[in-house]
Amino acid sequence: MSARNALYLQSGGMTAVINASACGVIETARRYPASIGRVLAARHGTLGLLREELFDTDGLGRGELIGMRQTPGGVFGSCRFDLDEPDANPEQYRRLLAVFEAHDIGFLFLNGGNGSMQTALQIARAAKAHGRPLQVIGIPKTVDNDIVEADCCPGYGSAIKYLASSVREASIDMASMSSRRGRVFVIEVMGRNAGWLAAGCGLAADGPDAAPQLILLPEVAFDGEAFGSKLNQCVERIGWCTVVVAEGVRHADGTPLAQVSREGHYVQLGGAGAVVARLVQERFGFKVHCAVTDYLQRSARHLASATDDAQAYAVGAAAVEAAVAGADGVTMAVERVSSSPYCWRVGAVPLVRVANLERRLPEAFIRADGLHVTGEFVDWARPLVAGEALPAFIDGLPRYWSPRLPLLPAKLPAHEPRPPAAATRKPVG
Amino acid sequence: MSARNALYLQSGGMTAVINASACGVIETARRYPASIGRVLAARHGTLGLLREELFDTDGLGRGELIGMRQTPGGVFGSCRFDLDEPDANPEQYRRLLAVFEAHDIGFLFLNGGNGSMQTALQIARAAKAHGRPLQVIGIPKTVDNDIVEADCCPGYGSAIKYLASSVREASIDMASMSSRRGRVFVIEVMGRNAGWLAAGCGLAADGPDAAPQLILLPEVAFDGEAFGSKLNQCVERIGWCTVVVAEGVRHADGTPLAQVSREGHYVQLGGAGAVVARLVQERFGFKVHCAVTDYLQRSARHLASATDDAQAYAVGAAAVEAAVAGADGVTMAVERVSSSPYCWRVGAVPLVRVANLERRLPEAFIRADGLHVTGEFVDWARPLVAGEALPAFIDGLPRYWSPRLPLLPAKLPAHEPRPPAAATRKPVG
Repeated sequence: MSARNALYLQSGGMTAVINASACGVIETARRYPASIGRVLAARHGTLGLLREELFDTDGLGRGELIGMRQTPGGVFGSCRFDLDEPDANPEQYRRLLAVFEAHDIGFLFLNGGNGSMQTALQIARAAKAHGRPLQVIGIPKTVDNDIVEADCCPGYGSAIKYLASSVREASIDMASMSSRRGRVFVIEVMGRNAGWLAAGCGLAADGPDAAPQLILLPEVAFDGEAFGSKLNQCVERIGWCTVVVAEGVRHADGTPLAQVSREGHYVQLGGAGAVVARLVQERFGFKVHCAVTDYLQRSARHLASATDDAQAYAVGAAAVEAAVAGADGVTMAVERVSSSPYCWRVGAVPLVRVANLERRLPEAFIRADGLHVTGEFVDWARPLVAGEALPAFIDGLPRYWSPRLPLLPAKLPAHEPRPPAAATRKPVG
Repeated sequence: MSARNALYLQSGGMTAVINASACGVIETARRYPASIGRVLAARHGTLGLLREELFDTDGLGRGELIGMRQTPGGVFGSCRFDLDEPDANPEQYRRLLAVFEAHDIGFLFLNGGNGSMQTALQIARAAKAHGRPLQVIGIPKTVDNDIVEADCCPGYGSAIKYLASSVREASIDMASMSSRRGRVFVIEVMGRNAGWLAAGCGLAADGPDAAPQLILLPEVAFDGEAFGSKLNQCVERIGWCTVVVAEGVRHADGTPLAQVSREGHYVQLGGAGAVVARLVQERFGFKVHCAVTDYLQRSARHLASATDDAQAYAVGAAAVEAAVAGADGVTMAVERVSSSPYCWRVGAVPLVRVANLERRLPEAFIRADGLHVTGEFVDWARPLVAGEALPAFIDGLPRYWSPRLPLLPAKLPAHEPRPPAAATRKPVG
């Protein structure tokens, strides 16, 4: 059987190391010319696939791949676009299969999170239903760390390395400022449903009174009294307190602290961090500062974890190895072989066991009072931030790069996908 | 004349490299035992001086000084405390002079910004008026870069290295996300009256369409129409836009964009970044993200500029050299000898020419439309971020350290300074 082409897609929100996975795919595929022809990449993920906007990565030289691996964001572009169900939009699937056929795609590598694994599953099923030979392999990626059946997700380690470092630094700054009335630093991090990023900030706490002293998780209903009491105790003891707030923290009745207006104007009334900051200020009169890390936490490539970068590369490489060995309908997953010393490998999990599911923080990782993490969490998370994978610096700033590849000439009629019928997943940025 | 002791104070808001200045003072003073006895450091700056809470830095070994230099925040503690005028509070000055006498202080090194230079000047005048031999030397420090009579201020280079890197990273992430309705990233940075930090983000723009595309400065009255028009043009051209917002941006009538409530509840309605984000969202319907860097921008020691670190050390060291040579009533200042190649030296400026004055961005650094910086600014600022002064990393996170020195036994009766009569300067965090 002659070599067939592979298509690589970046999907969903970005991470600091997703391009390491792209490099893992491209560089590994080049070692199997008998099985894999060219590696194409869709522009803006699923949208580019539907639009037949494809790059040919064959034009990328070794130096370009080095630069690409060091760059945050998705060098080929991503999107948040859910496929409709086949019954609801059969035309969409005909289009997908036509693009695969036109470009002789035999392998699809979908680099994304929970939602993207559902897309991968939908495409795999459609290909089977239409008798189209296509091996579909997922490559995990998410700062949210919420993909099930894996020990951790590439992208997460770098995000918490950045967040924990930032919490430590900002707290040292605040602690050095004297105040008669007490100081509180609130930092809002991503995490609508799962508190993995907020929990990761707990790595900064290297002593009993070290920051962060309080962590508000989406998994734990917000209890203003218990929170206020612990906060006040901390300020009375050491003069200040750092509070990590996951954006998705909710009241006991399920309503989020962040007051989103009817028009979805999230910023209008501030996010969960601003709400907590206001609460602290009004109730205690402390001097409150509030930082919102937003995109910074998922793009801080300058502080990427070397372990995370290696895992991101490895899941891409392993996806190709698996494909060459005949795998189909699976996603790669980082597995933990041993915690001390930390030892990991890449395994494979069927897409059906992963798609659209969401892994929240297990109870064993949440302190009994719900306001911090456990030592078990810290032991689990610490190896994920190990090592610094610095990018190149030029003129004092990190030098990033994305390929300026031409799009392949279209072979099919132009097609603009219609917006998805309904948003079925979390509407995160 | 026998050697007399020196007192070192950290004052005002912190920077990522202020402890490099502390090391410069301590290490240099040790080379002049005939002139300088011990270097004492006040706990929380002027407050510690008034309270007679003093550390003896003689206990710090070489390794401790290395760790200290790599640590953000002020290792001896800082405060925002303005001295009263001598007529209004003569008792305060008697107390100061009593502390100097009790600990045989012959040299005062005050490491701070505009306001702290005023404090230095007040103390110098009081010492003279009372016939107390005391040499007072200022050591500049501020992320705001607003001290007059200097080319740049230690602390600023590291802050803009962090901010420009973050703007570049977050913008690359956003640019890689497809959006049908356009995306805007707003990042709020410090700067109530002077736009140096916001301007520094302009270093990230390495091409005509590179981020940040718009910079809102406190020096330029906010013109919603002009801003909206430029923003919309940018999004129409490339699909997204990054906007840097200085916290102190004002309307033409002088009222700040950030809506501070009567109670001073700054966070209640959001800062300038949130206001701009809401404006963009409501007017254009773009998908808007907003980050607020807050303390992070002045404490990001993990991304400190090696040039800034060297300058911070040098102004500390030069202050001691100047003191030994007999200087009094001056502050050190980084001077630019040459721009290309970048060459700098440390000079001295009389405190009276610096105290309480504020340097705003010169017109030559602001683009004609008021919405960005000029090439002249970029040429000026670029050398300040050169080089990476990485701290040590342990277990994947920067390892910071502050000395656990005991306080010297008090020789005077206890004294608690009364709060200043009136806030005479900017109330920045």
